Amino acid sequence: MATLNLDPAAEYLPYTPDIDIRDQISARQLMRKYKLGPNASMLAAMDLMVTKVEEIREQVNAFEPEYLIIDTPGQMELFAFRGSGSMVVNKLAGERSLVLFTIDSNQARSPSGLVSNLLLSLSTQYRFQRNQYNVLNKSDLLSPDLIDEIISWVEEPQQLEISLQAEGLEAELNLRIIQIIEAMGSTSTPIPVSSLNRSGLDRLHAVLEQALTGGEKPQ
Amino acid sequence: MATLNLDPAAEYLPYTPDIDIRDQISARQLMRKYKLGPNASMLAAMDLMVTKVEEIREQVNAFEPEYLIIDTPGQMELFAFRGSGSMVVNKLAGERSLVLFTIDSNQARSPSGLVSNLLLSLSTQYRFQRNQYNVLNKSDLLSPDLIDEIISWVEEPQQLEISLQAEGLEAELNLRIIQIIEAMGSTSTPIPVSSLNRSGLDRLHAVLEQALTGGEKPQ
Repeated sequence: MATLNLDPAAEYLPYTPDIDIRDQISARQLMRKYKLGPNASMLAAMDLMVTKVEEIREQVNAFEPEYLIIDTPGQMELFAFRGSGSMVVNKLAGERSLVLFTIDSNQARSPSGLVSNLLLSLSTQYRFQRNQYNVLNKSDLLSPDLIDEIISWVEEPQQLEISLQAEGLEAELNLRIIQIIEAMGSTSTPIPVSSLNRSGLDRLHAVLEQALTGGEKPQ
Repeated sequence: MATLNLDPAAEYLPYTPDIDIRDQISARQLMRKYKLGPNASMLAAMDLMVTKVEEIREQVNAFEPEYLIIDTPGQMELFAFRGSGSMVVNKLAGERSLVLFTIDSNQARSPSGLVSNLLLSLSTQYRFQRNQYNVLNKSDLLSPDLIDEIISWVEEPQQLEISLQAEGLEAELNLRIIQIIEAMGSTSTPIPVSSLNRSGLDRLHAVLEQALTGGEKPQ
């Protein structure tokens, strides 16, 4: 397995990536060198990344990894929704690949927060056009009951409707949203994981292996 | 009318705002002062903004504006999807208010690009819980025929289906998306405008006046 960090503006990573875009492009350095503001420096970094794709691919190939995990920039307007982002991902991702979309547990506590994250996830899926799974990250922050409730919001739109009403949200918008969540289908149900207490990681691994190999280990 | 710029990282504005958050908070200065990276500086700026809301509100009130236009940061993960963003907007927006969601014409050229923007728009609407209209910005970049086609993608899902198929996108995902676009309803149809050739501005103004006042001029 190899890990690749694609976020040129990452300040701190809780792991040491095998390959790191920051070795070639650093948003902070671009800022200093060209006297750019924070926004402009990140845009410049994203666009520069496109010119480095071949180099990065060679670095990846040198690892001959069974799996490659790509850690992409969290700012979706800058990465997922600009041409350079999908271009880079399409050049780096193998034939068998999928996207994990991370939903922060704190943002999933309320039905409206969860819904807006699910819509973002769907928008990203549309952008990258790959199999995509939602991960409910830092699930240790939530009680088991709340996790069950969150899952029920996605799997039983009736539950979601009741909870949205309780939140006092507009009825007509809620009805539309419920249709939308229904249309998203079961693959949108988030998989709760915690890197703190390791819960859910086995299940996530099983889901990914199933999705990527149809049950068999990749060669 | 008064204009308020709420983007602390804006490098250049094509207008002079009456009130400017950058007079109080500048992402660039935060970066220098606390040696923050671009990401961290923007997060810090957004959170600081919450502490300045009362001050900004007083500045706004001094103008006694008939209308207040708030220009919000474009980076939605930083603004719309964090608690501080909706907190600030809720404190500043009047009783009669609405959100204009800007879709860049270049991102609406392909059906998949348009769809992912519509999903983002819906996600934002869910976040702010206000009436929301989509604006197709910089429409001068598109031919009149293409503008008609884009409108037809939203208003006639059958058209969207054909165009998505032509783009070679996955059939099952397309079907779901079409259900979702249908569920969004007609208010999601983007209003094409161009500040370059002034087209669409009259119509936008009429739509907004209708939405805010029910036809009457506000007091």
